[in-house]
Amino acid sequence: MAIWNGRVLNLCILWLLVSTVLLNDADCHSWKKKLPKPRKNLVLYFHDIIYNGQNAENATSTIVAAPEGANLTILTGNNHFGNIAVFDDPITLDNNLHSPPVGRPQGFYFYDMKNTFSSWLGFTFVLNSTDYKGTITFNGADPILVKYRDISVVGGTGDLLMARGIAAINTDAYEGDVYFRLRVNITLYECYY
Amino acid sequence: MAIWNGRVLNLCILWLLVSTVLLNDADCHSWKKKLPKPRKNLVLYFHDIIYNGQNAENATSTIVAAPEGANLTILTGNNHFGNIAVFDDPITLDNNLHSPPVGRPQGFYFYDMKNTFSSWLGFTFVLNSTDYKGTITFNGADPILVKYRDISVVGGTGDLLMARGIAAINTDAYEGDVYFRLRVNITLYECYY
Amino acid sequence: MAIWNGRVLNLCILWLLVSTVLLNDADCHSWKKKLPKPRKNLVLYFHDIIYNGQNAENATSTIVAAPEGANLTILTGNNHFGNIAVFDDPITLDNNLHSPPVGRPQGFYFYDMKNTFSSWLGFTFVLNSTDYKGTITFNGADPILVKYRDISVVGGTGDLLMARGIAAINTDAYEGDVYFRLRVNITLYECYY
Repeated sequence: MAIWNGRVLNLCILWLLVSTVLLNDADCHSWKKKLPKPRKNLVLYFHDIIYNGQNAENATSTIVAAPEGANLTILTGNNHFGNIAVFDDPITLDNNLHSPPVGRPQGFYFYDMKNTFSSWLGFTFVLNSTDYKGTITFNGADPILVKYRDISVVGGTGDLLMARGIAAINTDAYEGDVYFRLRVNITLYECYY
Repeated sequence: MAIWNGRVLNLCILWLLVSTVLLNDADCHSWKKKLPKPRKNLVLYFHDIIYNGQNAENATSTIVAAPEGANLTILTGNNHFGNIAVFDDPITLDNNLHSPPVGRPQGFYFYDMKNTFSSWLGFTFVLNSTDYKGTITFNGADPILVKYRDISVVGGTGDLLMARGIAAINTDAYEGDVYFRLRVNITLYECYY
Repeated sequence: MAIWNGRVLNLCILWLLVSTVLLNDADCHSWKKKLPKPRKNLVLYFHDIIYNGQNAENATSTIVAAPEGANLTILTGNNHFGNIAVFDDPITLDNNLHSPPVGRPQGFYFYDMKNTFSSWLGFTFVLNSTDYKGTITFNGADPILVKYRDISVVGGTGDLLMARGIAAINTDAYEGDVYFRLRVNITLYECYY
């Protein structure tokens, strides 16, 4: 009988130890924590039509800043280094510009490399569909010529409250310097209700 | 006696199961986690006086970029689409511009919609009062004509170390294109010491 | 025997209570949580050479926006209030501009105070070394004349997936308005694999 009692006690002690290890995971020797499973995956497209001096009706973005000697209707040479554009584009669920928009990505990007095409993005998906009402905000470098490049999801509101995660961006299509379409594959590891 | 021992064992096993479920909450079927209770609520006001070519003394913000054909002392037509302004405003605890400031919101905003007033904000509250010394940084879309709009708190330093949460912004007052006052109702769900 | 059994039961109940308290830490009375131990510390340097109209070859950043009346090759008076610069600089492990770069900090900064030197930063460290491949993104106010100033780490990708933390920045060297070097001491409290 005493042996039996001892077993129960041992089980409890074992569990105490196991729990303690689990709860202290944050202090373990490795400097990284194991990523939880993704909570949500969303694939959205956005379509950017840059103002070129002649398409005021259709344009969804405009160059607002440029380095010395450049103008604001033609992207600069030097891989557009120094151009800032502000945008309010349609978001669609597929790659068709004319599909019903589920929201607007609003934000800015600028080209920041002299020797290749590369940009930096700060923008918010303002979603307003039957599925989601709320925002997700993104920040990060966008090395345009890389097929898939990851940027950070830094926050969210509404149905995407306190979202965190990453988004893999790829350039799905482009037409010269006037149109590009980005496919944004969002993986959220944190999201709250 | 054996039954009694069995009960103890069962209790332990039950607890094992309950703990496991709690610890694995992140893997549960719903894609969202339950939001913890807010840790902190802060209401602050900030006051923006835009440089219009004549108020250099009082101005706390200035237009620094604009689309082609616009100038930098008058906000553009088209709902100011494309204007970027940089600001360093006073923060007050009430809606009086002349109350003692508890810090400075520093950052930028730009107008990003052609057909309505809407902006995007990136800024930091640099707090320097007896209550708080530190920073909170915000990012997000600001659809100005909506009464309350939420933006994301993406980080913090000092007394607001590693802050995360949201802020409900509303336009508390404005005078033409030169002055506006925002009430910022900050809810922090994460903050560390 | 019954006493012995009671002890085992008590141990279980005690553990139940302890676990519950630990799991509910987020709801404790203090509004802040105890910060976990830092997971990672990284010290990196970056070097910014501003385009001044004559150094197109060497420049790694360029002024792209300025308030009314200013030009884009000379930082404005008024503590550069209103200047936005876009940059793509080398990152090095020590303070030598000519050390092999381990990545590029890409982003922008703007000067946002009229009466002192102060800026706001939004940028990403794009790391590409044998040690780290991935990005860390930063946001925050940079009161330049303060020796050490903290900004927020708002996200990361790749080897720095979902990074959160802070970075202490100090101006390690500068030469007039053309060159500055920042030492960035990054402390990550969250990072995942």
